[in-house]
Amino acid sequence: MTSQTFPPARFQSFEEKSDPGQVAPRLAALRAALQNAGVDGFLIPRADAHRGESVPDSEARLAYVTGFTGSAGLAIVGRERAGLFVDSRYTLQAPAQTDTELVEVNEYLLGGLAPAVADYVPEGGTIAYDPWLHTPGEIRGLAAKLGARAKLVPHANLVDAIWADRPAPPAGAVEFLGHNRTGREAADKIAEIQGALAAAGADAGVLTLPESICWLFNMRGGDVPNTPFVLGFAIVPANGRPTLYLDPAKHTDAVRAALAETAELRDSSELVAALEALGQDGRAVLVDPASAPEAVVAALRAAGARLVEERDPVLLPKSRKNEAELAGMSEAHRLDAVALAKFLFWFDTAAPQGGLTEIGIVTALEAFRREETSCVDASFDTIAGAGPNGAIVHYRVTKGTDRTLAPGELMLVDSGAQYLSGTTDITRTLATGPTTPEQRDRYTRVLKGMIAISTARFPKGTTGAQIDILARQFLWQAGLTYNHGTGHGVGAYLGVHEGPVGIAPRYTMPLEPGNVLSNEPGFYQAGAYGIRIENLIVVQEAENFPGYLDFATLTLAPIDTRLIEPAMLTAAERDWLNAYHARVWREIGPRVEGAVKAWLEQATAAI
Amino acid sequence: MTSQTFPPARFQSFEEKSDPGQVAPRLAALRAALQNAGVDGFLIPRADAHRGESVPDSEARLAYVTGFTGSAGLAIVGRERAGLFVDSRYTLQAPAQTDTELVEVNEYLLGGLAPAVADYVPEGGTIAYDPWLHTPGEIRGLAAKLGARAKLVPHANLVDAIWADRPAPPAGAVEFLGHNRTGREAADKIAEIQGALAAAGADAGVLTLPESICWLFNMRGGDVPNTPFVLGFAIVPANGRPTLYLDPAKHTDAVRAALAETAELRDSSELVAALEALGQDGRAVLVDPASAPEAVVAALRAAGARLVEERDPVLLPKSRKNEAELAGMSEAHRLDAVALAKFLFWFDTAAPQGGLTEIGIVTALEAFRREETSCVDASFDTIAGAGPNGAIVHYRVTKGTDRTLAPGELMLVDSGAQYLSGTTDITRTLATGPTTPEQRDRYTRVLKGMIAISTARFPKGTTGAQIDILARQFLWQAGLTYNHGTGHGVGAYLGVHEGPVGIAPRYTMPLEPGNVLSNEPGFYQAGAYGIRIENLIVVQEAENFPGYLDFATLTLAPIDTRLIEPAMLTAAERDWLNAYHARVWREIGPRVEGAVKAWLEQATAAI
Repeated sequence: MTSQTFPPARFQSFEEKSDPGQVAPRLAALRAALQNAGVDGFLIPRADAHRGESVPDSEARLAYVTGFTGSAGLAIVGRERAGLFVDSRYTLQAPAQTDTELVEVNEYLLGGLAPAVADYVPEGGTIAYDPWLHTPGEIRGLAAKLGARAKLVPHANLVDAIWADRPAPPAGAVEFLGHNRTGREAADKIAEIQGALAAAGADAGVLTLPESICWLFNMRGGDVPNTPFVLGFAIVPANGRPTLYLDPAKHTDAVRAALAETAELRDSSELVAALEALGQDGRAVLVDPASAPEAVVAALRAAGARLVEERDPVLLPKSRKNEAELAGMSEAHRLDAVALAKFLFWFDTAAPQGGLTEIGIVTALEAFRREETSCVDASFDTIAGAGPNGAIVHYRVTKGTDRTLAPGELMLVDSGAQYLSGTTDITRTLATGPTTPEQRDRYTRVLKGMIAISTARFPKGTTGAQIDILARQFLWQAGLTYNHGTGHGVGAYLGVHEGPVGIAPRYTMPLEPGNVLSNEPGFYQAGAYGIRIENLIVVQEAENFPGYLDFATLTLAPIDTRLIEPAMLTAAERDWLNAYHARVWREIGPRVEGAVKAWLEQATAAI
Repeated sequence: MTSQTFPPARFQSFEEKSDPGQVAPRLAALRAALQNAGVDGFLIPRADAHRGESVPDSEARLAYVTGFTGSAGLAIVGRERAGLFVDSRYTLQAPAQTDTELVEVNEYLLGGLAPAVADYVPEGGTIAYDPWLHTPGEIRGLAAKLGARAKLVPHANLVDAIWADRPAPPAGAVEFLGHNRTGREAADKIAEIQGALAAAGADAGVLTLPESICWLFNMRGGDVPNTPFVLGFAIVPANGRPTLYLDPAKHTDAVRAALAETAELRDSSELVAALEALGQDGRAVLVDPASAPEAVVAALRAAGARLVEERDPVLLPKSRKNEAELAGMSEAHRLDAVALAKFLFWFDTAAPQGGLTEIGIVTALEAFRREETSCVDASFDTIAGAGPNGAIVHYRVTKGTDRTLAPGELMLVDSGAQYLSGTTDITRTLATGPTTPEQRDRYTRVLKGMIAISTARFPKGTTGAQIDILARQFLWQAGLTYNHGTGHGVGAYLGVHEGPVGIAPRYTMPLEPGNVLSNEPGFYQAGAYGIRIENLIVVQEAENFPGYLDFATLTLAPIDTRLIEPAMLTAAERDWLNAYHARVWREIGPRVEGAVKAWLEQATAAI
């Protein structure tokens, strides 16, 4: 079985994309642009105007200038020195990808722009930034911290000015999902949002998040990897037809006709003029200060608009999946479970023989998923951490880091896919030989926490912040924890990470029926192994308990029972695990055959 | 045993103090005062300038005018009509105490002043208020809600103007505790607070809370029932000696000499002039907008001060009890446990015979406590709820409501005392005969939650909001809950309720070593029974788990095991209960004798 070969991965690249040799000439060109512009520094965030986790190649300015390809970061290029600010995930990767002679790498906690950017310009100097790439909140926060130390000025993007071979903006074809797959007409959704705008006292709202416009207009696209986003903007008046601002290259006549039933279609290039028109006569316009580009806000304000700064009104309704969306998510999870069963059987057979590599494991998993033709993408780059690499929470294997899994090491695989029916995200931690008492203790504590969330019941109004501790309590008893949230929201054939609900102290929104969340406690022993167990769950009305909510589980793949210390489970926990596995066998058993089926039967046997 | 007689209760009155017949003449007098003052209405909150739960008789204006004696409420007296706003605890008591022909009683959720006060004055009318009895935050909040509907104006208190036989202000003797009982010199505490003032950029701070001045200057007094508060004010400069504003009748020469080591002593009547002097030259003065009277803030502002609105800097240090305070609290709980053992034995013998009344139970418990001479007061009026009265969360028995306990009913007793060594607060729910499966199920769920808090371990930085769910989870599983917090802070020979830490979703401060908290989940079946089990616990560094905290238990009284459904307890929960009872027996057994000792031995036997 180890000799089984797979087609090359298509959803994920294992290349080190950066070329530190390009840093010197690009910094030199940018400094000439600074000189021309009469400013002392320029900010380069890893962001586009739509705040997504992925940015199209045309927006990868941070990678273009510094070589750093991580999913978050900020550079400042000054006249003499340049700095790169990254969070703890990237303190190894960033120095490896950039030219550290020319770019100082600094660790910085996420959650605002680093005030230390001022260290790269003279006292009282001027730092320019592209107002399309920052929110007003970010700029206000940084300006308050800088005080008189440095001055922030909006400016046309200086990187674009020196980026000779800049890729064209993405123009992924827009697909109109219509009512069947989304369970709801766009017109009905628009009416709900218009009600929210009126309630907020706004004459109109500007939507800048691709998940919002995709949900509202029942469309999906192909502008970025991993998520079927359409990059664009929308203006929704409290009364009347919304206008959608898209690159016309993205839509066919048929899509255009479908969208035109509910919206005016305009070219993105017309947005600023539209904002200026919208803002006149002191009209009240809702913008989300956490996500709207400052350029949008500035255009509105300059035109005289009264800004209503509130959360994007689409986010909450979108987080409450309807029956059609949940049916699609369930089907996506059954499809994914078939791929997982094949993968886990293959892994279980091959791993103890040695020789598996992380890249090989990612490639195999993708291949099993692609056997299902409605699997259109990975929902994120697979995290496949062998042994000590499993302890790196956001590990992403490249040719440079690829590790051969030694039999006996733990293997952590966190992956997900985009099916036309829905989005998946699953983590399993796998034994490849004898396990240690410590590993079993930690694994069982993680599992107990994961079961505590799965079986939680709570009154309406309860928040993700409140239930988070249920997942951590058993680790905390042993003085252990994990430094990430317990769960995030998941979109329905949309972003695998979406707000505003989740399970962590920062999620203070009440959980509501239809919320799809991950449930993924973990434990990481640096230099040794990582453990994480993740299912997706849906908030539902609790049967027989009016006013109470609980969870249904979407994910249907075996949880490795060889890593469990049975004496640490309560009877109720053991019952849950056995019932879960019985359900996996009942629902997925009929969908697999032969050796995979035989393997699945024993992997889901009661303990 | 039932024939045992007890001295009359001294700490608690069972009288209905109000006289609805006085409402008419007092309203008439107040309306004449309104006329003279040229205003349309006057606000009468149940508050003094110090925001305590108890107010001295001289400040009981709400009771004087309306007859209502509850611990929270607000009246508005207009030219024609008068309204009384009370929370759900008092919707029965308030109409019984006031003249409902003349005063409309309205239910109102606490947490701000009721905007419906405007219904009692003409459109655009003027509502006067005493700025010593409201915080700036309350007035700002109400003004914002009223808009143009009515205008708020500060005014000398109109009730005082008509209150001919108003009691004199309290002048309880001040006691100086010194270093021995508080574990820390006042000078050391003052230096810490001065550091906090400097860090907040304040030149001085004004303290208006009695718990803050009592803690800071190591003094206690007798100005209000239940809590050894000294009512007064202090001004603490960031550098130099603080000034304490007290009624000189409260301190003897010896106390004066002791306090004078660290503070200037001034008469309270000199406070306003001092604030006016303090505010000059734009000095930055810290005031707590949640507790400072608006009059204090207004005097500072009028003098030109720059206000630094932050939490009273004493509250956090005070919540971290030091070793001497914790030793005192432990001793207070051992003394209380002796009284509880005597009481529970008496109750257990007498209750099944019938004839016990709630007042008799309160009286007996107080008598057992008073056998210890260092017991100086109850820390609050005992809540003794027989059968259905147990379901009234804030029940306080009077002659009018006194219920004879029928054998077989559950008895809920929530009580506490002030010992010179510390403050206690304990709730036990007691069987008096056969129990029902439903009662045992609910009691066991409450107990499991109480044990989950008692045994919780958590990393530093964890808040009371996070751990609250541990107490609720077992009730929630059955679609049940309780509508109060799980725990509140408790002072060391100070207020039995103190902030800023606690266990409930609203307590978002990290728990810190030395915090003393109540742990009191409950369940209330309206019209049938109430269940609550309460111990006090202390946050401590977790032994062997660096960076983690857990709880030690202070309270040492048997938990009624006859109400437990043993099959619902996990092995770990049973172990905790048995270990707790073994400790009660070990620590309290040697302090009691005879029949009480024999009873305690069986009440603490392992299950």
